[in-house]
Amino acid sequence: MANGCPDSMKNVLNLFFEPQGVAVVGSLREGYFGGYVVIKTMLNAGFTGKIYPVNPSYQEIHGLKVFPSIQQIPDRIDLALIMINRRTVPTVMRECVAKEIKAVIVVADGFAERDEEGAELQKEIVKIGREAGIRILGPNTAGVVNSANGFIPDPYEPGYKKVKPGAVAICAQTGMINPQAFPYADLHYGVSKICDYGNKCDVDECDLLEYLEGDSATKVITMYLEGIQDGQRFLNISKRVTPKKPVLILKSGRTKEGAKVSASHTGALAGDDQIFSAACKQSGILRIETFRQFFELPKIFSLQPLPKGNRLGIVTFTGGVGVLAIDEGTQYGLTVAKLSPEIGNRLDNIFPGLGKTVVDIGPPMAVNNYMTIYSEILQTVMLDQNIDCLFNVIWTSPFEAFVDEYLKLYSSLQRDDQKTIATWVYGPSLPLIRKLSNGLEDLGFPVFSDLETAIQALGMAYQYSTWKKGEK
Amino acid sequence: MANGCPDSMKNVLNLFFEPQGVAVVGSLREGYFGGYVVIKTMLNAGFTGKIYPVNPSYQEIHGLKVFPSIQQIPDRIDLALIMINRRTVPTVMRECVAKEIKAVIVVADGFAERDEEGAELQKEIVKIGREAGIRILGPNTAGVVNSANGFIPDPYEPGYKKVKPGAVAICAQTGMINPQAFPYADLHYGVSKICDYGNKCDVDECDLLEYLEGDSATKVITMYLEGIQDGQRFLNISKRVTPKKPVLILKSGRTKEGAKVSASHTGALAGDDQIFSAACKQSGILRIETFRQFFELPKIFSLQPLPKGNRLGIVTFTGGVGVLAIDEGTQYGLTVAKLSPEIGNRLDNIFPGLGKTVVDIGPPMAVNNYMTIYSEILQTVMLDQNIDCLFNVIWTSPFEAFVDEYLKLYSSLQRDDQKTIATWVYGPSLPLIRKLSNGLEDLGFPVFSDLETAIQALGMAYQYSTWKKGEK
Repeated sequence: MANGCPDSMKNVLNLFFEPQGVAVVGSLREGYFGGYVVIKTMLNAGFTGKIYPVNPSYQEIHGLKVFPSIQQIPDRIDLALIMINRRTVPTVMRECVAKEIKAVIVVADGFAERDEEGAELQKEIVKIGREAGIRILGPNTAGVVNSANGFIPDPYEPGYKKVKPGAVAICAQTGMINPQAFPYADLHYGVSKICDYGNKCDVDECDLLEYLEGDSATKVITMYLEGIQDGQRFLNISKRVTPKKPVLILKSGRTKEGAKVSASHTGALAGDDQIFSAACKQSGILRIETFRQFFELPKIFSLQPLPKGNRLGIVTFTGGVGVLAIDEGTQYGLTVAKLSPEIGNRLDNIFPGLGKTVVDIGPPMAVNNYMTIYSEILQTVMLDQNIDCLFNVIWTSPFEAFVDEYLKLYSSLQRDDQKTIATWVYGPSLPLIRKLSNGLEDLGFPVFSDLETAIQALGMAYQYSTWKKGEK
Repeated sequence: MANGCPDSMKNVLNLFFEPQGVAVVGSLREGYFGGYVVIKTMLNAGFTGKIYPVNPSYQEIHGLKVFPSIQQIPDRIDLALIMINRRTVPTVMRECVAKEIKAVIVVADGFAERDEEGAELQKEIVKIGREAGIRILGPNTAGVVNSANGFIPDPYEPGYKKVKPGAVAICAQTGMINPQAFPYADLHYGVSKICDYGNKCDVDECDLLEYLEGDSATKVITMYLEGIQDGQRFLNISKRVTPKKPVLILKSGRTKEGAKVSASHTGALAGDDQIFSAACKQSGILRIETFRQFFELPKIFSLQPLPKGNRLGIVTFTGGVGVLAIDEGTQYGLTVAKLSPEIGNRLDNIFPGLGKTVVDIGPPMAVNNYMTIYSEILQTVMLDQNIDCLFNVIWTSPFEAFVDEYLKLYSSLQRDDQKTIATWVYGPSLPLIRKLSNGLEDLGFPVFSDLETAIQALGMAYQYSTWKKGEK
């Protein structure tokens, strides 16, 4: 296990993300939760494997034959998804043993997180799994997503069909990250894998980290954790993974009060927060602080090159935003880029006083042909070798035609792996902000929902690149 | 000036927000900037005063008679809006003197913020204003908004018609707060007044604060500042205002690098940040940190009662969110509310294990009639006298019918001034999140864009209420 990802681990967890045959055990009643939804969602997403609904009361659902029990499925099953009353789960687990299924997602809840009886039931299914060599994800999980093959066994109705493939892997101890809870489609948010490990009775953050280490679709890993099962193992794996891929962790239970409540609802100890922070530093983990950062910061890694240095350039429509950006950047070790004299002069020739530290588009845009000037300014700034990180602010205007012109301009920009660019889009219309943001991200320019988050993304990318250099 | 708002000040600044006759001096060419836009926007917003376009090259615009010069307007003019080349501004200012106009908004830029010549021009217009008793807003400003009378002389096209009346006053040294830059309409964001004071050559944050102190439409004041003209005066006014209305301030130039750049683009010294923080504490000013907080936190004050105490109750769809909320709340002095035994029992009777510190709707919603259960849980929690601040998380579901049912439920809820409620809405569809958020805010329940901001709003409200009690 010293170098590279252990093949054995990769193969086993593969069953959770690339199953060829999936048994869906549970209610098939039409509704917004359960087997009916899971099967509909996978069919909508174009899942490439085979689906075997299991329920004694149905013959057919969504055009698929329903089997009365797991044993009666004639083909090999890689994964069973169990969505039934907690008390029946052990029985179904035993059927999985008989069918030689090696991976099970227990969506059902009411286990260790609820009461004593649930804790006992959880122990029982773990025992059955261990003895038969079955890996269990959950219980109390909203499951996984693999964007590449349409495997989206979401037990809740997400209301949309596809999750856009991308390079961000998202793992958490909560279904808040699954398609029913986050508008991946509306945001054009690209992911590789999603995993809610729920109660972590077997498969845990360590297993996931090892699996994602070897997952070629994943370029950046982001995790929400309440507690860590095996701190030493987690750090050992992290040390191996972080030089290859950034690992961002949001850990709750930072405060004593939070940790206490966390312990009561997961049944796990949250551990000392300062020790965790120190361990993160030591192993190259990027610790993040908010749920917004959890979704937004990974995009800088998935869509942009790492910064060559810490010199922050700013293109904005008002000086005030530049000052706020510098305030924020300083906290992450970024410094204000001084424009090279040549670029400064060229900007001053476009508009008097433009060639300053903060390139302020506001004044020239009011008095000239806006898009021409904008394009000229942007392309000039892009040439400056003194800028490592560029904070790029774009005002949509209230006109859709302008948004289309922006997208035309950005699609024609030469790929520049000398700069890390974080963009903030603002304006008077939410639909136009969304259209421009989605369009830019589709072109590889990550857009952040506010100026501080954009700067934090650049700062985090700079910190990671510094750490990575130190590791080599 | 010791007690109450000085009437003289209120009357003068009144001209900037409630002018009966407005001269609009500048280009009337069709486009997205200038007099053409200003007049169109005011007409769209139903401005109740009279508009007098001034331009020698036009006879009529938007159905209004155009005057060749200010002198030739036959009626009284309360306010002139000047949007012309900087070098012509002094001439027009002298015409304002002759016409006995007492308030001028200089939208034109290129003054002290640009170069030496601009600085001289700025001195010149200040001199003209002082001698004639004309108050000047700007230069380099996107002007003001008064939502009550449709006075929205925005020099840039906002693309929408109305700014919803509300109780939040927003002031800044940048046009980033004006309707062309922020989607007030799409967000149903209610404001009383907006003011971009630009270069602050005359009217400054002190004047605005005094004016807003006496403005009955304004219940909460939020300001973005890069520097303060007269620190002592600002603190004196603040001390008088903050016991009546919360004042939230976002001040940039927090760091040395930021302060340096700020000084270079405003020509003003930013001052020592720690001194400013200390002064805020002393005078009851609520200091905020991010542009997101700038727009979001005031809503808790404009729409909800102040907290009676610091006991934080949580209704959520997943325990993890509860833990993150507690972590955040602790930093603002909030503590976890312990449900009263009676309410705890009633919740446990709705669903086993529900009556915990963090009321987790997740498990019951998957197995029952969702909206009935939801309504029952919410209304039970609302009865708990042990909760002062309620963090209310709502999952939209992917179904519009659910959103409509939520809105029906919330519109029937009894007004409760015993609890301060901050809501976070999440789900798989941006349009549904928006619909529910807007609907709830229209009903008086402020919705925040992420969980941390919602908790910060509660925390800030608690801190303000504590400070206010101490003042009495």
